Amino acid sequence: MSGAPRIAIDAMGGDEGLAVMLDGVALARRQNTALRFLLVGDEAQIRAGLATHPNLAAASDIVAASEVIAGTDKPSAALRRIKTSSMGLAITAVKAGNADAAVSSGNTGALMAMAKITLRTLKGIDRPALAALLPTLGDNDLVMLDLGANTECDARNLVEFAVMGAAYARTVNGLTQPRVRLLNIGEEELKGTSEVKAAAAMLRAAPNLALCFDGYIEADRLGRGDVDVVVSDGFTGNIALKSMEGTARMITDLLRRAFTSSLRSKAGFVLSRPAFHMLGTHLDPNNHNGAVFLGLNGIVVKSHGGANPAGVAHAIGVAAKLVRDDIGRRIADDLTGIGAQTSATPAAAQ
Amino acid sequence: MSGAPRIAIDAMGGDEGLAVMLDGVALARRQNTALRFLLVGDEAQIRAGLATHPNLAAASDIVAASEVIAGTDKPSAALRRIKTSSMGLAITAVKAGNADAAVSSGNTGALMAMAKITLRTLKGIDRPALAALLPTLGDNDLVMLDLGANTECDARNLVEFAVMGAAYARTVNGLTQPRVRLLNIGEEELKGTSEVKAAAAMLRAAPNLALCFDGYIEADRLGRGDVDVVVSDGFTGNIALKSMEGTARMITDLLRRAFTSSLRSKAGFVLSRPAFHMLGTHLDPNNHNGAVFLGLNGIVVKSHGGANPAGVAHAIGVAAKLVRDDIGRRIADDLTGIGAQTSATPAAAQ
Repeated sequence: MSGAPRIAIDAMGGDEGLAVMLDGVALARRQNTALRFLLVGDEAQIRAGLATHPNLAAASDIVAASEVIAGTDKPSAALRRIKTSSMGLAITAVKAGNADAAVSSGNTGALMAMAKITLRTLKGIDRPALAALLPTLGDNDLVMLDLGANTECDARNLVEFAVMGAAYARTVNGLTQPRVRLLNIGEEELKGTSEVKAAAAMLRAAPNLALCFDGYIEADRLGRGDVDVVVSDGFTGNIALKSMEGTARMITDLLRRAFTSSLRSKAGFVLSRPAFHMLGTHLDPNNHNGAVFLGLNGIVVKSHGGANPAGVAHAIGVAAKLVRDDIGRRIADDLTGIGAQTSATPAAAQ
Repeated sequence: MSGAPRIAIDAMGGDEGLAVMLDGVALARRQNTALRFLLVGDEAQIRAGLATHPNLAAASDIVAASEVIAGTDKPSAALRRIKTSSMGLAITAVKAGNADAAVSSGNTGALMAMAKITLRTLKGIDRPALAALLPTLGDNDLVMLDLGANTECDARNLVEFAVMGAAYARTVNGLTQPRVRLLNIGEEELKGTSEVKAAAAMLRAAPNLALCFDGYIEADRLGRGDVDVVVSDGFTGNIALKSMEGTARMITDLLRRAFTSSLRSKAGFVLSRPAFHMLGTHLDPNNHNGAVFLGLNGIVVKSHGGANPAGVAHAIGVAAKLVRDDIGRRIADDLTGIGAQTSATPAAAQ
């Protein structure tokens, strides 16, 4: 697509709905004045909301949608409303060529189902995967996939995830040869499920990949910043991601309890506030917001349901980078190398 | 076994070796004066070490072992030294009836292999599982299993893990009807692998279990303290455990960096030290030390390789509770109910 990148926004999705989404889109527009938007949702409400965002109004068109997908809707129920819901019509705009990418803070399962049905998978990709950015102790965020799109995966799926994750890391983190590892319960070759071992063999054997395959990684090393992409099936990836989220929340809760346990601790907390702020900024999910369904004929970015305007703007920034780098073509190019290789060695996939 | 419980100690295992182990055993003995010990390892070194622990010396016998299993030894290599190593002879003492339980801080893979070969699985148990205690925001530690003994599991394995984990929670946490959940990527019935769904069906259908099966739990809720036992295959459990460990370590590192970033933060840290101490005590792995291989004809407790004396004493305390409650008989009793049920409904296991 030529000209200014145009992002379709599911303006009604997310826990807080329209106001936070519009604030986020307006912020994204201030950060990148080249962007244009399709705002999809209740036309009257969007028009009213734009009254306080003249800058955004000038860069936006509205697409009217009469329905909103709820967080509790099952994917099957959501699919019946592709043509009427704000989420469905945002994706449809990408399919029709009216937008270069879609961004939604709505129901993940519904978004995935609609994106898959509407956009279809890229040639050479068996299944799309959900990839996200995680904070680390290093300079770059970690790209992790699959985070739940595919409960069970074979070795070939994992290899495709590695290729797609590397393409994503090159785009969002500006890397040339991302370091990729498979998530496993040990670093020795003997460890892991048969699928993981077969995927490792295929990645070791594949020539000319635009990535550096470094073997396995254990889950306690994900935050160290010495790897760029971590690949797993969607069940394992989801468990790892949520274990990390839950632990971070538990420690935050314990810290809060500890710091309110005495006057002295409270005073210490006040003095330490800048330090906590620094920690909070580093771990704040809004600063890493924007999960992507990789492997589709079109770009769909999932913003966290609870994202604030800065988080929504970050997700839109991710979408804009993926448009700029033409992530679909990049993945298709990368697959040509590995396609010939892996179909020539079917035994390695067993 | 009648009389005072006797614990066989692999005195040479662990990162710090003999001195820490003896300090830990001596502490356990002070905490529970009824305990007696078999100290297995280099006889001269143990004798020398006991010189500073007269109280422990009076309660201990020494079993000489000429070899030590290293942390880097493969299980297969370790198995060849069952009759000569401190780890192997500690387990052998349980098998021979000379000890009621064995405790080792050594190589987990080697310990598991030796324990399985020497003690064999309980009648009715297909595979032993590794269970550990995790800190939560609630009153009790969470029992979690399997943590890596079985990479791939079928539904029947998961059901057995549920029964064993519940028996363990009743023993260590003094519960009568532990709340048990299966680790999954959602709480809805449709979510998860076929094995997890089949295990849930079997647990729902089984009558008269000494546990309350509550369905699924997502990994971000493990620390909330509203569930007593969480069951998964060993691959998933290991990933979840290590994700939690890695996140806790990353946040600790970030906190340290933040608090040394300015004079003001440093002053805040000094004032806040009691709060940090409280947090540290709650999360300190030594206060939750003692993973157990459940499902064997004998009790084997794995102490963390880096455990301090308090950690070693905690692991010994876990072993003593398991001896007191005759955990093997408890599991065997619990299995009688579920055995009849699940063999009568093979379709549920598909």
